[in-house]
Amino acid sequence: MALFDLPLPELEKYRPTTRKPPDFDHFWTTTLAEAAKHDTLVEVTPTPTGLALVDTWDVTFTGFGGHPVKAWYSRPSGTAGRPLPAVVEYTGYGRGRGLPIERLLWPAAGYAHLLVDTRGQGGQYGSGGDTPDPVGSGPSAPGFLTRGITNPGTAYLRRLLTDAARAVDAAAALPDVDDTRIAVVGNSQGGGLAIAAAGLNPAVSALLASSPLLCHVERNITITDAHPYAEVVQYLAVHRNSTAAVLNALSYFDAVNFAPRTTAPALFATGLRDTICPPSGVFAAFNSLSTEDKTIDVYPFNHHEGGEAHHNAHQLAWLHDRFGT
Amino acid sequence: MALFDLPLPELEKYRPTTRKPPDFDHFWTTTLAEAAKHDTLVEVTPTPTGLALVDTWDVTFTGFGGHPVKAWYSRPSGTAGRPLPAVVEYTGYGRGRGLPIERLLWPAAGYAHLLVDTRGQGGQYGSGGDTPDPVGSGPSAPGFLTRGITNPGTAYLRRLLTDAARAVDAAAALPDVDDTRIAVVGNSQGGGLAIAAAGLNPAVSALLASSPLLCHVERNITITDAHPYAEVVQYLAVHRNSTAAVLNALSYFDAVNFAPRTTAPALFATGLRDTICPPSGVFAAFNSLSTEDKTIDVYPFNHHEGGEAHHNAHQLAWLHDRFGT
Amino acid sequence: MALFDLPLPELEKYRPTTRKPPDFDHFWTTTLAEAAKHDTLVEVTPTPTGLALVDTWDVTFTGFGGHPVKAWYSRPSGTAGRPLPAVVEYTGYGRGRGLPIERLLWPAAGYAHLLVDTRGQGGQYGSGGDTPDPVGSGPSAPGFLTRGITNPGTAYLRRLLTDAARAVDAAAALPDVDDTRIAVVGNSQGGGLAIAAAGLNPAVSALLASSPLLCHVERNITITDAHPYAEVVQYLAVHRNSTAAVLNALSYFDAVNFAPRTTAPALFATGLRDTICPPSGVFAAFNSLSTEDKTIDVYPFNHHEGGEAHHNAHQLAWLHDRFGT
Amino acid sequence: MALFDLPLPELEKYRPTTRKPPDFDHFWTTTLAEAAKHDTLVEVTPTPTGLALVDTWDVTFTGFGGHPVKAWYSRPSGTAGRPLPAVVEYTGYGRGRGLPIERLLWPAAGYAHLLVDTRGQGGQYGSGGDTPDPVGSGPSAPGFLTRGITNPGTAYLRRLLTDAARAVDAAAALPDVDDTRIAVVGNSQGGGLAIAAAGLNPAVSALLASSPLLCHVERNITITDAHPYAEVVQYLAVHRNSTAAVLNALSYFDAVNFAPRTTAPALFATGLRDTICPPSGVFAAFNSLSTEDKTIDVYPFNHHEGGEAHHNAHQLAWLHDRFGT
Amino acid sequence: MALFDLPLPELEKYRPTTRKPPDFDHFWTTTLAEAAKHDTLVEVTPTPTGLALVDTWDVTFTGFGGHPVKAWYSRPSGTAGRPLPAVVEYTGYGRGRGLPIERLLWPAAGYAHLLVDTRGQGGQYGSGGDTPDPVGSGPSAPGFLTRGITNPGTAYLRRLLTDAARAVDAAAALPDVDDTRIAVVGNSQGGGLAIAAAGLNPAVSALLASSPLLCHVERNITITDAHPYAEVVQYLAVHRNSTAAVLNALSYFDAVNFAPRTTAPALFATGLRDTICPPSGVFAAFNSLSTEDKTIDVYPFNHHEGGEAHHNAHQLAWLHDRFGT
Amino acid sequence: MALFDLPLPELEKYRPTTRKPPDFDHFWTTTLAEAAKHDTLVEVTPTPTGLALVDTWDVTFTGFGGHPVKAWYSRPSGTAGRPLPAVVEYTGYGRGRGLPIERLLWPAAGYAHLLVDTRGQGGQYGSGGDTPDPVGSGPSAPGFLTRGITNPGTAYLRRLLTDAARAVDAAAALPDVDDTRIAVVGNSQGGGLAIAAAGLNPAVSALLASSPLLCHVERNITITDAHPYAEVVQYLAVHRNSTAAVLNALSYFDAVNFAPRTTAPALFATGLRDTICPPSGVFAAFNSLSTEDKTIDVYPFNHHEGGEAHHNAHQLAWLHDRFGT
Repeated sequence: MALFDLPLPELEKYRPTTRKPPDFDHFWTTTLAEAAKHDTLVEVTPTPTGLALVDTWDVTFTGFGGHPVKAWYSRPSGTAGRPLPAVVEYTGYGRGRGLPIERLLWPAAGYAHLLVDTRGQGGQYGSGGDTPDPVGSGPSAPGFLTRGITNPGTAYLRRLLTDAARAVDAAAALPDVDDTRIAVVGNSQGGGLAIAAAGLNPAVSALLASSPLLCHVERNITITDAHPYAEVVQYLAVHRNSTAAVLNALSYFDAVNFAPRTTAPALFATGLRDTICPPSGVFAAFNSLSTEDKTIDVYPFNHHEGGEAHHNAHQLAWLHDRFGT
Repeated sequence: MALFDLPLPELEKYRPTTRKPPDFDHFWTTTLAEAAKHDTLVEVTPTPTGLALVDTWDVTFTGFGGHPVKAWYSRPSGTAGRPLPAVVEYTGYGRGRGLPIERLLWPAAGYAHLLVDTRGQGGQYGSGGDTPDPVGSGPSAPGFLTRGITNPGTAYLRRLLTDAARAVDAAAALPDVDDTRIAVVGNSQGGGLAIAAAGLNPAVSALLASSPLLCHVERNITITDAHPYAEVVQYLAVHRNSTAAVLNALSYFDAVNFAPRTTAPALFATGLRDTICPPSGVFAAFNSLSTEDKTIDVYPFNHHEGGEAHHNAHQLAWLHDRFGT
Repeated sequence: MALFDLPLPELEKYRPTTRKPPDFDHFWTTTLAEAAKHDTLVEVTPTPTGLALVDTWDVTFTGFGGHPVKAWYSRPSGTAGRPLPAVVEYTGYGRGRGLPIERLLWPAAGYAHLLVDTRGQGGQYGSGGDTPDPVGSGPSAPGFLTRGITNPGTAYLRRLLTDAARAVDAAAALPDVDDTRIAVVGNSQGGGLAIAAAGLNPAVSALLASSPLLCHVERNITITDAHPYAEVVQYLAVHRNSTAAVLNALSYFDAVNFAPRTTAPALFATGLRDTICPPSGVFAAFNSLSTEDKTIDVYPFNHHEGGEAHHNAHQLAWLHDRFGT
Repeated sequence: MALFDLPLPELEKYRPTTRKPPDFDHFWTTTLAEAAKHDTLVEVTPTPTGLALVDTWDVTFTGFGGHPVKAWYSRPSGTAGRPLPAVVEYTGYGRGRGLPIERLLWPAAGYAHLLVDTRGQGGQYGSGGDTPDPVGSGPSAPGFLTRGITNPGTAYLRRLLTDAARAVDAAAALPDVDDTRIAVVGNSQGGGLAIAAAGLNPAVSALLASSPLLCHVERNITITDAHPYAEVVQYLAVHRNSTAAVLNALSYFDAVNFAPRTTAPALFATGLRDTICPPSGVFAAFNSLSTEDKTIDVYPFNHHEGGEAHHNAHQLAWLHDRFGT
Repeated sequence: MALFDLPLPELEKYRPTTRKPPDFDHFWTTTLAEAAKHDTLVEVTPTPTGLALVDTWDVTFTGFGGHPVKAWYSRPSGTAGRPLPAVVEYTGYGRGRGLPIERLLWPAAGYAHLLVDTRGQGGQYGSGGDTPDPVGSGPSAPGFLTRGITNPGTAYLRRLLTDAARAVDAAAALPDVDDTRIAVVGNSQGGGLAIAAAGLNPAVSALLASSPLLCHVERNITITDAHPYAEVVQYLAVHRNSTAAVLNALSYFDAVNFAPRTTAPALFATGLRDTICPPSGVFAAFNSLSTEDKTIDVYPFNHHEGGEAHHNAHQLAWLHDRFGT
Repeated sequence: MALFDLPLPELEKYRPTTRKPPDFDHFWTTTLAEAAKHDTLVEVTPTPTGLALVDTWDVTFTGFGGHPVKAWYSRPSGTAGRPLPAVVEYTGYGRGRGLPIERLLWPAAGYAHLLVDTRGQGGQYGSGGDTPDPVGSGPSAPGFLTRGITNPGTAYLRRLLTDAARAVDAAAALPDVDDTRIAVVGNSQGGGLAIAAAGLNPAVSALLASSPLLCHVERNITITDAHPYAEVVQYLAVHRNSTAAVLNALSYFDAVNFAPRTTAPALFATGLRDTICPPSGVFAAFNSLSTEDKTIDVYPFNHHEGGEAHHNAHQLAWLHDRFGT
């Protein structure tokens, strides 16, 4: 993919004026308060995995509306009773939490690791998911982004982001987690959820987002044809009178509006040829972060895959520095 | 598209052994009985369209679970008080009922016409839909086919097919409809729904299905890569242990199992190069119809578009012969 | 498709300097005069369609060179002797007039409707056409745009546009047409033909063009790869010394040069993501219209399909307002 | 491209029963007799090319209907007055004769070379053509194959094949050609024309056809999606009632029906992965040749490009052996 | 991808007659003997990774020709002095060993893990490699498969497979490895290398190959268009006279010829829709294994991704049973 | 392809600041001096081709490192003892010299013609090559551009360009060549090699480069996705820390740095829609040529094919004017 977005010097200072609804904070305060009425943890069950170095539990916590959300909780074996800093990880679009043997980086690095399932998703690729989305919706494009999207209150994204924020509460409530050191981590959709969780839950003390989705959506739907942003275009191409309502609703879920709400140190990454999560959106979110302790790794020749293991190595070192691990 | 399915002489006698669950009849008797507990018609509201020759009403009837389902009811203007034979039409996959000015063939031919919306769909192309699917689901592939598909009871298709059967009840309940002459019509997904409605609702007295979906799905997922059958493949590629459950659930919704249940005369059509709804599935359903009064038009050089207006012209003449219009 | 053409604010005031040959008016005066030497109507034969509400006649009129051109003439049944306003409709590229049951919107709305066939075309998709183009040509790219294109006198487009202008004469000559109220309508190639017909035939009293082709061709061949403009690029890529001749010839058929010649009220439409008929060309034509009574509907998320039924609904209302129907 | 056609052992004995109209011979006798009423050569003009070793003339001969057809006549410079064996070459689909400096193989090998232009074509790729097709047609698919195809008398292919046969007469009539040694050569469409010319003109004394088009068309339109056979499929997909007429007309132009009519020695070639001119069609023509002196080179890993220069080298040697050059 | 290869019942008994050169055993005995003249291990250097649970060393061992080959050696931290069973893993085509934090499954399961780099590769995707291939080659298709492929002695694959066999020696020579329990593991190209290593090195006591490449290549190049087998087709399409030499050379590197040479228990896997490594090749290799203790997991709805984590979970359990871990 | 690069007026004055290493001249002086230590010609063997007008010899000369490089030497038959001006021609990417009957333009025009093989290439398409590249490399992307690319000393391109410069020495050393009139010619990669050869070897007295590769690579890898520049992007996407080294190495082989070094008259060509060798790179090289006697033909509607035979005709005339042939 050739370069197609703004040049890097412009990206580095890109601070677009974006849509933010006046009741944004109220909307989320109310939403989270409603969710918090339910007990955080429902079930934590040990799960055999065949891995000698890692213990895993199958976790059910309550997300939006008190709905059960699944997660894998993994940590170095034999560390019971020892509080560990935690990494809450969110998955990419279409994926679920898969199997507990798939993502071993953070437990192998010594962290308590909560790998959060994604409601309704998990049927597109990978090894599956286990969390239903028990809520229906009006007409939508194939996929998840446009379910209920004419109204922020009914939007699938409201439920998804609430789950992400609640996952941090779940992590804090798990045994032997040091709740002063909770990082959120994610790539692609997972990156967007990490930013949202950091903006919504003050318990987050480090934010790692690579190639994040849901950043300045209103621009992305004009500059890229790639999925999943294309779902929004597809929906609006059919629902020709819903543009204002949909753009308004989407702004409740845009990382650009969550980024200023966190003071956690942040490590971002973007590929300059990424048409799935274009770099201008990523920089728009990054540049609106409140913290001074922020870094963004730029991969000039990469598409959506970004830095892959090279960035993971940086993430390990960066979080080690922040969490003293 | 080159020919890829069975040769025509084999298609003409194709009667595969297909999966039929032992409780198939019971499942549907129970499902329809539950749906019938709700009043059929909820609302019938005149709708201005700017069309001098056709009157239209915005109809809400109750489908599965008593959920409201939308439809457009159109008939020649100035025929109030005159009972007309009715054509109940279902739409293609991803489409909704759109606007009432779009499908004028049947009212222009003098029929009462009920164009049924498709729950949840209507966000993919065309001019939209108005019927939500208020039920959530477990993890699914993008699209609708695999929502809730591990169990026939929770499957989206159960709700969709029940709506289709209930639409015939709605048509019969509308004012000035001759309920002894109700045809069901559809193309692609609409064709599959028409076959299901005919198999489920004895009030159907003529069946017109072109390029129908949902015919011998278990074979189609091995011979074509095209959407929407590809959604099932995608789901099973992720949910590697669900094959038996999914194939079992799908068999409750397969036209091959509905076709023998109707005695209505039938006009089918298929394109021999149709990879979306391959001809072997269409013939499998057609060949299992109980009626002797059945015809299938074969379009040897066409893909999914089949006969288009040429087939519509045949449909007009064929139904005219059957309904004495 | 991402946005690729000028931003909307620039489109709204886009008035490019375009090529207009000095003998443009003379060329067309001569061409139409020659065509007018032949009797307008050759044959008008009633055609059974099975539609209770609409009567249809198979019409043959004389187009360029006196060549016979086919059309379907449809009107509300039982309105013989009652003069009706007329809608002359042109079809998209590659299509012919098809069957008379396909396009029922305008007769159902109460208009006399003349659906004009397209010479030589009608073999690419749809349900066919019936009008030959009896004239050969020099080497051309596959398709129709470049036949005879090195000279305006021999160009296929000259014949095609003359047919379009003559169709209005044919409509006016048909029985029971109110020739003070004749609208021309078309989408894509049909939209380009409608603009040309309005510019060439003063009998046109309303112009409705959506996603029109043949608008500012000289720009389009530099900004889009899509067919059918790509035929021109393909031709010029081979005929490397013919650029000046071809661009000169094309300017005789460009809607930007026809638009100022009509004073009819006009309703246009364009999709901002339309690579087949890019919006800058559409605005270039629209902005050069002479009339003050002009409107353009912009569909920001749509490709070439534009507004579809949503725009048709607007067309019905708009023409109703203009024609008092 | 994977193997997709019959296995080689089956190809080698493939003799399908094909359609041959009863008046095939009469049709062509009449057609050629009509063409022969016109003087063969119209103009032979020396053309400077900048090539020291080759002299070239711009030739105009009369083809079907006496229409002028262009060709390049090239031969070793300084051989005036010396009769040379001749190679008549036909071009691929969409190409014209181009420039006289493009195809130097045969003149460099010492032959008189007549490179025949292709009427109407020459606008698709390459460096162009100079021969118009002055005849119009009914509705057709983009391209040339389906022009006038509902009737053998009006078909473009009739004109094209007559030109090919007449080109041999033109070669024989050129100065300093040994008319007892005239070979016809062509690749793809050119190969199909070479077979037709050999079957139609007894002056042909050697036939070289590689990857020939127009061989067993009725089978090819069922086994390949590739252009240009796809034009026929496209046409029949629209003109759903014309199948019998079109297949009948095409059989007048099928190499399988021309091959038995020549006794010239023949060298054929085919690539087993060629979806444009599938090998079964090539073998069907090859196996129906009357001569015993026939060879077919099979390129098992090649697509439509076949043997390229490797086959050209074989052609040089093979023709050298036959013509004693 | 639809099913395209043999049906499962035929696959299960598929034992094709394949090409095996008479000097196959001698070729490999000689090749390995030459390689064994060089010291196995060159360098073993501790490498910091930031992973608390795993220790890693950067290993250089000698492969073909004594060339240095890189690998990552990882094992549970704090297990120095404790002999562990080892897993030698090979990577997919185009990848190198990447970074040591990428593949944590086997060390997390308690094994000593040697992740072997791939000479010359590592520049196509992923996070890179570190092993040059210091040998040049004659003309080749882009990629690696056809380098030097006209002769088994000069083929890149000879060097690659020798490296794979030597990696087992390297694993056995590493400190604290239980050389009676060495498994070879790989997916795609890695799977092909694992089979080869097992066939070449009797120290292998378990073989795990999923979606393996290099299985019955001679058939694959006729049934699939996908890379990397397409490199062979591309080469043979150009080098039209080299087919016999190339097929002969490839047979020295075909897993079907290595499989009978190992007695190690084996776990294989294949996706029935895998066009990259089609299932018939995988079964051909599997069915020729000598051992009775062999299992193949079939994923009927998967393409080349096969079972992913689901299969990894089976691999963990299966190897646990065999190695008593 | 739509226009995508700079507008023509900007291209015409495009003189970007480009990377040029300080030791560029030294690097090449040293490299060529080393190569010149080997005898230029190794073998010159007459080769029968079946062409009456042309004599051909199979030539082996020494390129980089004294490695043998193959070429075809062709000239008008019967000109032994007569010194002729020479044309040294280089081939496109992936091709080899093929067979000696393929490229007859220059010998037919009366020149001595040396068609140079391309080391290692010749396996991608066409009719093959005969020159190995005996040097291995570190990890590389599929293809040739990135072999050894982290260092100018080890880069494949160093060897390739040295071969190109040495080919001119070989031409001068061949019998009956007028070494005061040696032109270098090439298209695509061949064009890039021609520019390099002209910049490196003062014996070049005319330079003809069409659609040349290797011109301003650093820009091309940001504006096009097409191969082969995409190989560089692919390599850098994996080797995320090698950007500086690779861009530095590439600058030793960039035509923009060779162009100022030649004073030979030059004829260039470019297609404005060429994404493979974008026009801005071609102009960057052209505009940096030292000579006043330079011409660039611009083909505004062409992609990478450029002017084809039309440009060849111009080349013949242009060189005739320069060499007095």
